[in-house]
Amino acid sequence: MILVLKQNPDKEKLQSLIALLAEQGFSTNLSEGTEHTILGIIGDTSKIDPDSFSNNEIVESVKRISEPYKMANRKMHPMDTVINLNGINIGEGFFSVIAGPCSVESEEQIVEIAKSVKKSGAKLLRGGAFKPRTSPYSFQGLQADGIKLLLEAKKETGLPIVTEIMNLNHIDMFADVDIIQVGARNMQNFDLLKELGKCSKPILLKRGLANTIEEFLMSAEYIMAGGNKNVILCERGIRTFETMTRNTLDISAIPLLKKISHLPVIVDPSHASGISSLVPSLSKASIAAGADGLIIEVHNNPAKALSDGAQSLNPAQFDVLMADIKRRVEFEGKTL
Amino acid sequence: MILVLKQNPDKEKLQSLIALLAEQGFSTNLSEGTEHTILGIIGDTSKIDPDSFSNNEIVESVKRISEPYKMANRKMHPMDTVINLNGINIGEGFFSVIAGPCSVESEEQIVEIAKSVKKSGAKLLRGGAFKPRTSPYSFQGLQADGIKLLLEAKKETGLPIVTEIMNLNHIDMFADVDIIQVGARNMQNFDLLKELGKCSKPILLKRGLANTIEEFLMSAEYIMAGGNKNVILCERGIRTFETMTRNTLDISAIPLLKKISHLPVIVDPSHASGISSLVPSLSKASIAAGADGLIIEVHNNPAKALSDGAQSLNPAQFDVLMADIKRRVEFEGKTL
Amino acid sequence: MILVLKQNPDKEKLQSLIALLAEQGFSTNLSEGTEHTILGIIGDTSKIDPDSFSNNEIVESVKRISEPYKMANRKMHPMDTVINLNGINIGEGFFSVIAGPCSVESEEQIVEIAKSVKKSGAKLLRGGAFKPRTSPYSFQGLQADGIKLLLEAKKETGLPIVTEIMNLNHIDMFADVDIIQVGARNMQNFDLLKELGKCSKPILLKRGLANTIEEFLMSAEYIMAGGNKNVILCERGIRTFETMTRNTLDISAIPLLKKISHLPVIVDPSHASGISSLVPSLSKASIAAGADGLIIEVHNNPAKALSDGAQSLNPAQFDVLMADIKRRVEFEGKTL
Amino acid sequence: MILVLKQNPDKEKLQSLIALLAEQGFSTNLSEGTEHTILGIIGDTSKIDPDSFSNNEIVESVKRISEPYKMANRKMHPMDTVINLNGINIGEGFFSVIAGPCSVESEEQIVEIAKSVKKSGAKLLRGGAFKPRTSPYSFQGLQADGIKLLLEAKKETGLPIVTEIMNLNHIDMFADVDIIQVGARNMQNFDLLKELGKCSKPILLKRGLANTIEEFLMSAEYIMAGGNKNVILCERGIRTFETMTRNTLDISAIPLLKKISHLPVIVDPSHASGISSLVPSLSKASIAAGADGLIIEVHNNPAKALSDGAQSLNPAQFDVLMADIKRRVEFEGKTL
Repeated sequence: MILVLKQNPDKEKLQSLIALLAEQGFSTNLSEGTEHTILGIIGDTSKIDPDSFSNNEIVESVKRISEPYKMANRKMHPMDTVINLNGINIGEGFFSVIAGPCSVESEEQIVEIAKSVKKSGAKLLRGGAFKPRTSPYSFQGLQADGIKLLLEAKKETGLPIVTEIMNLNHIDMFADVDIIQVGARNMQNFDLLKELGKCSKPILLKRGLANTIEEFLMSAEYIMAGGNKNVILCERGIRTFETMTRNTLDISAIPLLKKISHLPVIVDPSHASGISSLVPSLSKASIAAGADGLIIEVHNNPAKALSDGAQSLNPAQFDVLMADIKRRVEFEGKTL
Repeated sequence: MILVLKQNPDKEKLQSLIALLAEQGFSTNLSEGTEHTILGIIGDTSKIDPDSFSNNEIVESVKRISEPYKMANRKMHPMDTVINLNGINIGEGFFSVIAGPCSVESEEQIVEIAKSVKKSGAKLLRGGAFKPRTSPYSFQGLQADGIKLLLEAKKETGLPIVTEIMNLNHIDMFADVDIIQVGARNMQNFDLLKELGKCSKPILLKRGLANTIEEFLMSAEYIMAGGNKNVILCERGIRTFETMTRNTLDISAIPLLKKISHLPVIVDPSHASGISSLVPSLSKASIAAGADGLIIEVHNNPAKALSDGAQSLNPAQFDVLMADIKRRVEFEGKTL
Repeated sequence: MILVLKQNPDKEKLQSLIALLAEQGFSTNLSEGTEHTILGIIGDTSKIDPDSFSNNEIVESVKRISEPYKMANRKMHPMDTVINLNGINIGEGFFSVIAGPCSVESEEQIVEIAKSVKKSGAKLLRGGAFKPRTSPYSFQGLQADGIKLLLEAKKETGLPIVTEIMNLNHIDMFADVDIIQVGARNMQNFDLLKELGKCSKPILLKRGLANTIEEFLMSAEYIMAGGNKNVILCERGIRTFETMTRNTLDISAIPLLKKISHLPVIVDPSHASGISSLVPSLSKASIAAGADGLIIEVHNNPAKALSDGAQSLNPAQFDVLMADIKRRVEFEGKTL
Repeated sequence: MILVLKQNPDKEKLQSLIALLAEQGFSTNLSEGTEHTILGIIGDTSKIDPDSFSNNEIVESVKRISEPYKMANRKMHPMDTVINLNGINIGEGFFSVIAGPCSVESEEQIVEIAKSVKKSGAKLLRGGAFKPRTSPYSFQGLQADGIKLLLEAKKETGLPIVTEIMNLNHIDMFADVDIIQVGARNMQNFDLLKELGKCSKPILLKRGLANTIEEFLMSAEYIMAGGNKNVILCERGIRTFETMTRNTLDISAIPLLKKISHLPVIVDPSHASGISSLVPSLSKASIAAGADGLIIEVHNNPAKALSDGAQSLNPAQFDVLMADIKRRVEFEGKTL
């Protein structure tokens, strides 16, 4: 960490700042330039809050040098993390497609979709039981019943299930869920993250609408610091000024996350665009950019879906897309 | 709600769409233009999800006409809501200043600051007991002990207290807190909002970093729909491309929210800028723009604060600012 | 175009509004709902400024139905536009790679790079002669001399050249340039666009940092409305809150632009990310998403480049990337 | 400037980097930390392009310490700049209101508005002759005739005139214009800025829709470096995800710009919001935040305005606002 000091800092205040740092176990390096004086802090500065200096009279600004994420950092863990789920691998050379409806609506619906996406080649089933809706008047999901229906579909097809948690008191209810999803709006619900850190189930962590890549990794760090190393990162679009798509898929986040972290990275092209006709193009782009998987919305009757119909593929469209995905995953030398 | 149909829509599909709407109790109005055909849906469309049409083959786009918020809407409640708190009024002609440290750190600290801000003219005390921190390694607040210390400061000074909740299981712990704050990162933690809708305590709801004004009102609507009408809206800066300030204070949100909603609107200039030297200017601007109050960070030793020192005023700076605020509130014809 | 009227609009004012529209040749359709009255305007509304109604006392809001771009709209021109440049095709089934340095620095440099990128498979040479730099103290390009050196490189290699124009008085100087580039900062320099509309040379139009896809097409429309149909659209990243990359590549813009417009779409992965190590991933993603080409920065000594060294590949890296691009373009069934 | 080096940098490469810097006249300071090695560059680094190091094999990142703007920097010019215009002062303790229509439409219109705004207390007249419109099909302004009409209005009322330039070939046409405005879309039209740097007329420079405060000052620097010190900065809203207002007024930019630069700062509440009913609140907020003036749109018949009617006040509304502005400017201890 580097402190840029104001011009001609008061000698006494400078000495007391250096002493304060020494007390905390940091040594320092002072460098006087023509326009600025710079104080480098030497040691593990990850626990220093940069803001704690900003009000110091002689400090003009603070520049952090080290990354604040440790367990999610590839520097600390050079090999890719692979999540193993009863024989299904996520990460490294394996490519996973998770598919299913935005919301679980009925047993018939979820079982039919599960069979269909399995046949097309999906390895996991997604479906929303608890739905984060902007409006209190919108359909909030079948909740506990939704999870039961997902488990029914799992029994029928063998597909592991992925579903979103919105409430830290529900963790017991998710005991038979295979991957617990944290939605974009809860990416910084730190109490929920801490609770999930205590379990060993894989967590699919979605990036928040307005969260930086660094904040994204810090939220993964919350889960990992609690003891749960099984985190899957999911890029799902960020909020920008563009209104033609619901969000803006940050495709660069894929290679960046793969470079600076060892965690698997999957992409949600359905929420990223909000437009079903863009899902195939964004899926292809994500594979090419190095993603470890996709999570795609499929509905057997999108025009009548209770939520997010606009972004869902129907089973026939998904089947066509999966055939293309297979060719592309093979082209990349990965295993579907 | 208006459906813009594709050119020359299939007659049969159009009839079945109209029939589907009739089934749900909506009448329709068909208007054929030179380039588009438009189908107006007549009735209370607030419960229709616009996305549910988007996958319909003959629908090109959907335009919503009515606001989705009802209880927070000034059209439904033309008079300003005034929150009364043991004789302190928030809203309408009353202007409230809430002040205190980012984090409660010790009894001595919080009591000293409470006395000081009271003397300067603050009407309520703020202080963080549970702290939402980006890093799991940063100070997370004194938690339950922090609330005890706030209550101690309340006993000593008589100032009502405002503090942030991060976990829906903590509501009992907040029984003696006067105003419960929902932080920006939890603005769309819908399970927490629903829980807060069941109590009758005033809720200070902060706008999310990347949430629109409409989404902000929808989150207020969640609390109100649950039965709690005592919502105070707090603009605290949004995330933009500008990096010189921590966030960008959306000053236009103040007059806009006052126009379309009846709820009180306060401003947090400390988090909005992240720079203590900007707090006075932003406070003045907020008063002039029509805010009903301010929430300002004050620390007795900002340079040593355990969190957010950069944006805190010291008591002397706050005292100078309060003197200015008094003159300005009077100038606006409001009561401090 | 649809006017949403306020509740119970004044009958007289409504009649005069309808009369005003009739005068301008528009018929109208009035639809009274339970909460709103809607007035549809029938006819070619592309020349009506939506803002012109907003101050009308009885109008609450205005919703546009038709796209404001006509000549760039695929609805008006269903077939893909293909730009032919002495036998090189851009658009439809053809994939074009444009490569070269950010700035032309010397004859030796540009000729060496031109030979190198040609050998690797690039079809056109890029190089900045006039450089839009944020700082007046930064290197501004070799200007007229830079164009001469580019023409020299063209003579040596036969590669057509692409270079940026910043000043409408320079068009004569660009007489022998093959494709004139309009930079992101000049995307809404309308006087420049009008001037370029008068020539017949292909224009590579870059999307502005904060411009929507609709505004992007409107700028293409400026050039086309002037008579020049040869516009190539270039997505080069937009400005968002994320700071780890210089800009955020809007990958969704590729399939969206291909869907709503007939113009060729190329991508600039170098400026989009500002990080050379991300260029290969973004290039692959762009091909997969349906782009018609790439414009990539290559420098023979990036560490010493006078501008934008951070995002340039060296010739060896570019050669490796081109081999991969060839495989991928073939995989997509396109011709390099 | 600080170079953060990779772990254990190659000694030889480090020596050659230090030597390269020494050649260019810079001394260096090397500081070895536990995780990083840091190389401080000592000297006037404003002409070093930070990107030029980023491709160096041993450099991990570059941190700039000094501001890149010199002439616009308050550190170099501690006193406020005051622009004097035939007895009208802009800046320091003087507050200036510029008012008039978005577009000049006819002699009758502009003269009538000029008389009206003068009577209400405006000190300068604005009016668009050349209009930057997103669509080539929208009204483009009366152009040269518009300037003649503005000069007519100036003759009738004595009000100095402010109007926008879009084309560097038009400077002669602006010979009798008092203040030349550079619009947001041309803020980084560097060739135009350079040309304006050669004249001595005051330039009202609007901030670009997606430009940082630093880029804004760098564009002022372009004009000043050319020899023209008379630059007035104008904050007019930035582009964000919020759609309820046309742009988001960055109110924090006012105190920030006043702190780091000596140039006058005015605010355009009309373009910032795009909604006339918000103009009074934003005007009041801007005065309170420390602005040196306002530029407000006034139209004698906003409902029929050829452009931007939605954001224009009518003369009666402006008169009421001016009365309020006078009280507030006096309250701030400034001179209208």
